[in-house]
Amino acid sequence: MLIDGRRMRTIWPAGDGAVEIIDQRLLPHRLVTARLTRLAEFVAAIADMQVRGAPLIGITAAYGLAAALRVDPSDRAVAEARTALLAARPTAVNLAWALERVARRIAPAPNQRRAAAAFSEASTMADEDVQSCRHIGEAGARLLTDLAARKNGDLNLLTHCNAGWLATVDWGTALAPVYVAAEQGLNLHVWVDETRPRNQGAGLTAFELGQQGVDHTIIVDNAGGHLMQHGRVDVVIVGADRVTRTGDAANKIGTYLKALAAHDTGVPFYVAVPTSTIDWTLSDGLAAIPIEERDGREVTHMVGTDAAGALTEVRIAAPGSAAANYAFDVTPARLITGFITERGVCAPGELAALLCDVEVPA
Amino acid sequence: MLIDGRRMRTIWPAGDGAVEIIDQRLLPHRLVTARLTRLAEFVAAIADMQVRGAPLIGITAAYGLAAALRVDPSDRAVAEARTALLAARPTAVNLAWALERVARRIAPAPNQRRAAAAFSEASTMADEDVQSCRHIGEAGARLLTDLAARKNGDLNLLTHCNAGWLATVDWGTALAPVYVAAEQGLNLHVWVDETRPRNQGAGLTAFELGQQGVDHTIIVDNAGGHLMQHGRVDVVIVGADRVTRTGDAANKIGTYLKALAAHDTGVPFYVAVPTSTIDWTLSDGLAAIPIEERDGREVTHMVGTDAAGALTEVRIAAPGSAAANYAFDVTPARLITGFITERGVCAPGELAALLCDVEVPA
Repeated sequence: MLIDGRRMRTIWPAGDGAVEIIDQRLLPHRLVTARLTRLAEFVAAIADMQVRGAPLIGITAAYGLAAALRVDPSDRAVAEARTALLAARPTAVNLAWALERVARRIAPAPNQRRAAAAFSEASTMADEDVQSCRHIGEAGARLLTDLAARKNGDLNLLTHCNAGWLATVDWGTALAPVYVAAEQGLNLHVWVDETRPRNQGAGLTAFELGQQGVDHTIIVDNAGGHLMQHGRVDVVIVGADRVTRTGDAANKIGTYLKALAAHDTGVPFYVAVPTSTIDWTLSDGLAAIPIEERDGREVTHMVGTDAAGALTEVRIAAPGSAAANYAFDVTPARLITGFITERGVCAPGELAALLCDVEVPA
Repeated sequence: MLIDGRRMRTIWPAGDGAVEIIDQRLLPHRLVTARLTRLAEFVAAIADMQVRGAPLIGITAAYGLAAALRVDPSDRAVAEARTALLAARPTAVNLAWALERVARRIAPAPNQRRAAAAFSEASTMADEDVQSCRHIGEAGARLLTDLAARKNGDLNLLTHCNAGWLATVDWGTALAPVYVAAEQGLNLHVWVDETRPRNQGAGLTAFELGQQGVDHTIIVDNAGGHLMQHGRVDVVIVGADRVTRTGDAANKIGTYLKALAAHDTGVPFYVAVPTSTIDWTLSDGLAAIPIEERDGREVTHMVGTDAAGALTEVRIAAPGSAAANYAFDVTPARLITGFITERGVCAPGELAALLCDVEVPA
């Protein structure tokens, strides 16, 4: 998508097995790119959230495994690199999925060809992610067009966190339908949850919508229920970091609260994911999906630009008070209207049927 | 309650018809008091949120009316002062209640005695607010003790915004039960919603709990649903700015989302209010309670202390993106377990019965 009118992806090959990324910790204040070469740099980029978003984490991990293999292509090194990358962030299943796919691809290859094969597989996966997100966008845009047809005036969509192109390689998941529908001329307005504590809504989602010229308004996470009570939201679309085969969805903390409000007010609530985000091994999301806990400082302190434009961190909380920081919550399938995937739209109970040609573990 | 070990109220007489207040905009970073003498200063203190919280707004307005009468005690001046004070903030009904009470008291008095009578009435109301909050605390503490008896280990309470002593003259509404129960030796832990956009939870509630030595943890507003899903919250208590006779409660934006989560997970959800917060003229809260909209800058910018301890404002949102800022939402009675009032605890449908000796408009 566009930044300052220039087409970009979030991650791209930079020669010699390295990749470049947009350092998303500095958006929307600064557009800075970073070069990742060594395994430790890939692990840190994921753990410190230079890159974030389940699909993008997966692709970054795939390139990271390739980078590790340039140093040591042995089976033991593969296992160690997978462990290190997997531990960087526990909730998104795309990380495990991507590492498994690269590992399968290189397993039969001789050691000296493994790094190149892994890098090639990662690049293929990146391109597939773009295609997949575009398909999600097309399926979701049909849905938005149908909703708009039943309504007079603009369509108001609400989203939580950032599941836009910055969370993927390009196009996004929850925002892909917005971009495709906007391309098709649909009048849309997006309510953007700021998404505390890291403000991926106010920072990243608002930034990317602004850059593509999509009408939007930032609100605090507290406001969505009020808007839904007053008929100001026609549809909610969010992304997810892990979806069980039964349709429970782990996503950014606070998603569950918006799903409850949508359910209470009759607003359709969709989760947009590539099928790589589905964890076929799990059925009870609330009990089984690990929820990452992050540093409380993300809650008590906040980074922004001061009057002079300098990046500054301020303490916003009472000194001496502890803070807890749960990064995700799980929305039960019963609150989800449907999933928007690269294979089409389906109800939570139909996920397996939609993917009948996919190898689903029993 | 205590600040740095010293007993304080939020508002107190300062001679010559003036009052002093704690300027709450600067908490938790600075403890600064302000002197209010002229009507315009009282209006600004309420509108700019130097004082906030429905009960404290009411008391401040009562003193403000007295201040206006020192300049001009005519009926016309009374009417004008009431209009100005009432317009300062539209949602809290205590403002209208307090002005009505002072106006009734002074109506029969000759002009030269009106200012003194109004000031005296405001002081009486301030003392009654303290008593009322203490009674809320005692009624709520019994409830907390009962809940704790049914549970092994500490009781975990969640609250939203600040309905502590800083929202009243002393003791608070939602937090009064916490302070009384702590006095009685109950082991309590409070989950403090930070309460965007103005962070009254992370700033004021965490500050006052810390000052009284009550165990607490700050969380982002998004986190409460997750904690309730995992059995980490035993009870929710919030305040309110206006309650209809049917038990719908307007409170800080985001309260509705917590009530939905409590309902979905079987956690009891209480609203603690003095009966002056009940608007007997309204039955449909969602349709009838006016919801204040404030400046979007409260969403896009944030004030805190930088590394050197200086108060600094930073922009946290994407430049150029608009923000909307709804200050309150309405929680329907069906989601509320009960009200904790100075007259005891009751279900939403029993509000009128609890107050059978109060003059309730038909």
